[in-house]
Amino acid sequence: MATSEASVTRIMVAVNESTIKGYPHASISSKGAFEWTLQKIVMSNTSGFKLLFLHVQVPDEDGFDDMDSIYASPEDFKSLKTRDRARGLRLLEFFVTRCHEIGVACEAWIKKGDPKKVICHEVRRIQPDLLVLGSRGLGPFQRVFVGTVSEFCVKHAECPVVTIKRRSDETPQDPVDD
Amino acid sequence: MATSEASVTRIMVAVNESTIKGYPHASISSKGAFEWTLQKIVMSNTSGFKLLFLHVQVPDEDGFDDMDSIYASPEDFKSLKTRDRARGLRLLEFFVTRCHEIGVACEAWIKKGDPKKVICHEVRRIQPDLLVLGSRGLGPFQRVFVGTVSEFCVKHAECPVVTIKRRSDETPQDPVDD
Repeated sequence: MATSEASVTRIMVAVNESTIKGYPHASISSKGAFEWTLQKIVMSNTSGFKLLFLHVQVPDEDGFDDMDSIYASPEDFKSLKTRDRARGLRLLEFFVTRCHEIGVACEAWIKKGDPKKVICHEVRRIQPDLLVLGSRGLGPFQRVFVGTVSEFCVKHAECPVVTIKRRSDETPQDPVDD
Repeated sequence: MATSEASVTRIMVAVNESTIKGYPHASISSKGAFEWTLQKIVMSNTSGFKLLFLHVQVPDEDGFDDMDSIYASPEDFKSLKTRDRARGLRLLEFFVTRCHEIGVACEAWIKKGDPKKVICHEVRRIQPDLLVLGSRGLGPFQRVFVGTVSEFCVKHAECPVVTIKRRSDETPQDPVDD
């Protein structure tokens, strides 16, 4: 059954890179949140949904993690920005490709900044029907040091938010990893 | 397309009575959470979902709000319990009837106790794929006095939880009302 644009449910999924494997690999919790959305919500109703993938890149503290800062030129800065963008796009490609295979409409884009604030800002701008976030499911002790994007967004995002915790069999030895 | 039982998504919706209109009327936020689930998640995929309605009744402090406690007999207690159950069933009837009209499978049941604890207990027992809760969207000041079921469940329920806030045009003059 064809679904008109007005009745399509727009689900924003915030995705990030794996802390273990690095770019272009998606984090375990991002992939979990995405798969949950497909398996539990979208299912066979592929024309009823549009997925909106947001990847927020955290700016490097000094932007020089890969080179010797003494010799960095303006061109080096530019190539760093290009590299970051390319990495982000390759990360998003994973999700977009999967949507194309299944036949679910999607959009994907990159923003820079503090993930929790950027996600809430983009929710205000885009007004999705639902925001899906992966979560490492850390305990209160680990939370203090790591901070959690999902807790902040549950409180502050101006749309319904659902947090998908990692399955215990997918949790790495160090649960801060993802 | 027929959907096998295994791939049906089971959504638990916790519902309560209106504080303004009383039984058998459902609260504004319960109805909002239910309508959101139908319009944004279920849509035309009625065979893909099963809705599980849980209504938790808070025991009266003394069980005598409708009669003079001095003259209460054991039969009075029994009739109170029967009355409570009947009221709860009529509340649930609203949701069940609507599901039957649309053709979505559902179940509904009543429990007694502290709503936030009972909901989390039932989530552990039933293991739904998603818990949908209506919320009055109270500010921090009102929260202190009212307590919020949704905040507790977002933290403690062992399944993904989504909280649906009331639309501003549905918020009564006193936002504690529902």
